[in-house]
Amino acid sequence: MQANTGMNIHLTTGKNISSTEGESVFNALKRHEIYLISSCGGKGTCGKCRVKILSGKHKTSATGKISRNDRDKGIVLACQTFPEQDIAVEILEESRLVVGDKIALSKSKDLTELFKSLDGKISPIVKRLEIELPPPTIEDHISDLERLKRELDLKGIKSMRFSHAFASSMAADMREHNWEISLAYVDGPEAIFFSGKNTARYGLAVDIGTTTIVVYIIDLSDGKLIDVGSTYNSQIRFGDDVITRIIYATEQKGLGELRESVIENINELIETIVEKHKIKKENIESCVISGNTTMSHIFWGLDPAHIREEPYIPTVNFFPLWRAGTAKIHINNQAPVYTLPCIASYVGGDIVSGVLASKMHRNHETALFMDIGTNGEIAIGNNEWLMTAACSAGPCFEGSGIKHGMRATEGAVEAVKIDTKTFEPSLSVIGNTTPTGICGSGMIDAISEMFFTGIINQKGKFVRDLETERIREGDEGPEFVFHKGDKDVVLTEADIENILRAKAAIYAGISLLIKEVGFTLDNIERVYIAGGFGNYLNVDKAIILGMLPDLPREKFRFLGNTSIAGAYLCLLSEKMRKEAEEIAKKMTYMELSVSRNFMDEYMSALFLPHTDIGLFPTVEKLLKAR
Amino acid sequence: MQANTGMNIHLTTGKNISSTEGESVFNALKRHEIYLISSCGGKGTCGKCRVKILSGKHKTSATGKISRNDRDKGIVLACQTFPEQDIAVEILEESRLVVGDKIALSKSKDLTELFKSLDGKISPIVKRLEIELPPPTIEDHISDLERLKRELDLKGIKSMRFSHAFASSMAADMREHNWEISLAYVDGPEAIFFSGKNTARYGLAVDIGTTTIVVYIIDLSDGKLIDVGSTYNSQIRFGDDVITRIIYATEQKGLGELRESVIENINELIETIVEKHKIKKENIESCVISGNTTMSHIFWGLDPAHIREEPYIPTVNFFPLWRAGTAKIHINNQAPVYTLPCIASYVGGDIVSGVLASKMHRNHETALFMDIGTNGEIAIGNNEWLMTAACSAGPCFEGSGIKHGMRATEGAVEAVKIDTKTFEPSLSVIGNTTPTGICGSGMIDAISEMFFTGIINQKGKFVRDLETERIREGDEGPEFVFHKGDKDVVLTEADIENILRAKAAIYAGISLLIKEVGFTLDNIERVYIAGGFGNYLNVDKAIILGMLPDLPREKFRFLGNTSIAGAYLCLLSEKMRKEAEEIAKKMTYMELSVSRNFMDEYMSALFLPHTDIGLFPTVEKLLKAR
Repeated sequence: MQANTGMNIHLTTGKNISSTEGESVFNALKRHEIYLISSCGGKGTCGKCRVKILSGKHKTSATGKISRNDRDKGIVLACQTFPEQDIAVEILEESRLVVGDKIALSKSKDLTELFKSLDGKISPIVKRLEIELPPPTIEDHISDLERLKRELDLKGIKSMRFSHAFASSMAADMREHNWEISLAYVDGPEAIFFSGKNTARYGLAVDIGTTTIVVYIIDLSDGKLIDVGSTYNSQIRFGDDVITRIIYATEQKGLGELRESVIENINELIETIVEKHKIKKENIESCVISGNTTMSHIFWGLDPAHIREEPYIPTVNFFPLWRAGTAKIHINNQAPVYTLPCIASYVGGDIVSGVLASKMHRNHETALFMDIGTNGEIAIGNNEWLMTAACSAGPCFEGSGIKHGMRATEGAVEAVKIDTKTFEPSLSVIGNTTPTGICGSGMIDAISEMFFTGIINQKGKFVRDLETERIREGDEGPEFVFHKGDKDVVLTEADIENILRAKAAIYAGISLLIKEVGFTLDNIERVYIAGGFGNYLNVDKAIILGMLPDLPREKFRFLGNTSIAGAYLCLLSEKMRKEAEEIAKKMTYMELSVSRNFMDEYMSALFLPHTDIGLFPTVEKLLKAR
Repeated sequence: MQANTGMNIHLTTGKNISSTEGESVFNALKRHEIYLISSCGGKGTCGKCRVKILSGKHKTSATGKISRNDRDKGIVLACQTFPEQDIAVEILEESRLVVGDKIALSKSKDLTELFKSLDGKISPIVKRLEIELPPPTIEDHISDLERLKRELDLKGIKSMRFSHAFASSMAADMREHNWEISLAYVDGPEAIFFSGKNTARYGLAVDIGTTTIVVYIIDLSDGKLIDVGSTYNSQIRFGDDVITRIIYATEQKGLGELRESVIENINELIETIVEKHKIKKENIESCVISGNTTMSHIFWGLDPAHIREEPYIPTVNFFPLWRAGTAKIHINNQAPVYTLPCIASYVGGDIVSGVLASKMHRNHETALFMDIGTNGEIAIGNNEWLMTAACSAGPCFEGSGIKHGMRATEGAVEAVKIDTKTFEPSLSVIGNTTPTGICGSGMIDAISEMFFTGIINQKGKFVRDLETERIREGDEGPEFVFHKGDKDVVLTEADIENILRAKAAIYAGISLLIKEVGFTLDNIERVYIAGGFGNYLNVDKAIILGMLPDLPREKFRFLGNTSIAGAYLCLLSEKMRKEAEEIAKKMTYMELSVSRNFMDEYMSALFLPHTDIGLFPTVEKLLKAR
């Protein structure tokens, strides 16, 4: 056995990775494409790459970034920790950046096909003009800017605007490229920057969810996905939902802190991907942001206070094309940032993205679109009309507010089956590893199965006299143990209550919106479901839960994360950007909070599946057959 | 006699000002409207308010800002120095800010008359639109920006651009002013900021000379001058002329330092004036900059390197309308900054300003325009054509490079008469105080008189055998003493040589430019003279010196500082801005440095008045009559 040179790091997910002497845990993980959040780049100053050492000898430098309490638990900074023998490590969920996410990447081919089906002609936000300038002489001594304008005039391009930033690097750029330059500009027209000919061109698509942030880096020459990254929105530490964030924003420095959090998350994902793929950040020349209205406001540093106060007014719905430098996003400073237009205070650009990606705005059939993220927004309509509402479902399906909740990443329980006799669960875990938590689709399965097998009643409470040790009294009250191990995975009665509230809000919203347009469920020809769990949702079980309406199963389509899909489409195509704006203009917003009927609908939907079982005929049949 | 409560500060200019116990020298001076440079506001940290204590007991804190050598000379920081009895103080020239300059203020009435004669209709850069918005309701819940756009649409204003800065304060502004707002915007159109109705509106005009900076603050409602301030351009410490500044700019951090110097000078002048007049800086809503090409580039942080290298190319001649925030000028951050267009590397916006203020571009008669600042530029033409050249005269007429040279401010010898028999000079001093130096017009008088009375010969050398103690050997060689006192005022032989070089460059330029257009002196119907000394120049003596051509005296007109006058005109009027651009487009630039004849003309002009005395018939006659 070699001494100390070939050690292993055992992860709680079941993975083992190698580590060499003198290599920090941070670097060993990175070498195996496991990325931790680190805004200081591994210098021990940002205090973000926190991991928990479960066992094994190691050296670590004490830093002021970890509280005594956390130190006692074995929490260290991965970048300051060096194994001296095999060690066992738990990566804290909040420290994890996910790059090259297999779930998101599996959609990559679908994305290019989706783009082809909608447009197919790539027309990025930044346009290019190849220019050859006659070099200056004593006789032809006009200034550099006038020389450029003269050439643009000859090409019929008049009154282009030139920013101070453009002018500041212009003279050097012209000479560096020997007067043969590629002028990057946006509509207006406004000059953005110069580059040499045949420079690589990348774009950045960002989905800013209340709970999760997803970033795509795209090759603009062919629309291919270079890589994807995702992480929790670290604004979570200031509050779980948009309302608590808005309240925090109104506090002193609150808006600034919230903005810096999300910008830092995005920049960390960019940093990790460009390093992995050896991309120059200045070649990322445009960006599209898709987020709800509050997230879009905070991203731009616009005070969201009026979103929360009656009459609920956003500052901006249709965002001008501002610059990456203004947003503080670390790509080309002059890169234009396109923000998906918002519709109202609680229906934002992510829903416009979703409708765009669903194509429902182009089709004759009447469709229901649902995005079950932190908030839960719904839209109904077709190529003639569109109507939308928000139902504030809360962030539980993204893992927040649930004891062992987590996003749909490696280690998450994504599907559950419970034996009707033994009450023993069988789990399906993303990445086929030891489960570390439960994601949205897993929660829906779990509750639906617990209800169907009689572990919980119609109100979501545990039935106490069952012969199973799976139900136990935990430190937060009664809970059901799905996995026993180094770290158990459970759902508590409080978790179940949270999930019931979320599903009730969604169902009440759907119900009310359909009534508002004078329709019944029968008029709905298609149901599109978007959201983090996307592909993994079991529709039968979601109907048993009473979250989805009891419609023929063939009407349902799962679209995955449509917020990032719409951002991707808009990054590539002017036609898509125009359609997004048309969707936003056309869509009528219904304010559920002022509707007297919403509370009634919500209260009725708090049961499993609903107080009016007649609304769920297939579930009624199943329960009778049980 | 009261103990210590009523002390006096005796200034070397002859003035006495009162000082109270506990009051710093800095504050006592300020109370008497004598302003010192101080970017720290009197905290003892910037080290700029340097004065020399000649006598009298005082307390001063030693600060690291003054060298041992300077301390030994009695130099202290005025803000850290407190008199304990009557003291005598010399204000160092480099510490002085001049606010409410009587010379410049005397032109104030002329300025408004000049404006009336050229346009008279005030049309500032920032336009206003009074808007009343219907407040939002649950039914009319569009975003704030869409609400504004809807109103603009109704008024027929389409596709206005909205910056991030505008959007950031928009929501709060709308609510603060209760939806009745005045929208400030510029052509484009682009929104700039909101204000309440009837807000005071001020503008800032700046002349950035290589040696001197002049600032006007103007009331935009009536065009009246609120106040004027001037100071040395502190870039002087990096070099006297534009060439040495450009060389410095190419060094590491050089451009940044030069830019910060000039911006700080301008900001200090603004600060002093707004404090004196209780003006809110955010109500200064627009700015016009007039400077030579190098000064304009440095002001905007544009690398001036290519100005100096053949083929001498500026980065920008026609500057876009950038923002005060970008320029780092401390007025309203969003205020547009209009930069007078430049013509070539060595003929800049200050000359366009001058031609505009002279009105020669409107007149049928052919005129010669000369601006004798640090550089010395000339223009010739009429309403049909304009031609221009630069003759790099050097900064001596602004006081730089001359032993006791100073600007035309209080204490400057501005006119000199020398008795032909006794060689005793009689002096005229600005402000009728003890002379502290000699300004441009004084130098011209002095040399002309010394030549005419035979104190110096045709080559500018002292005639050694004269019966006068006024000629003596100083520490820099032979000198003539104009004033004897606590501080003598002299001109040295080296000073005279410098002045002759300057006048020779100017005369050679005039001569060559007139020949180039195929004219002789007879074709010149008018001569406009601009520059710091302006009104005080004695034309007869300038002709004896051989600086001005020997033309009939009634053809000469003195215009004062036309660079600031042009900036003033452009601040007030769109028509003036358009005319300035037409002048810049129309004017043909002649590069003297590539002309073989320039050196010949220059060498011939190094004599008093000229090697070819036939060119100066009236001087010839005078000398004969002597």
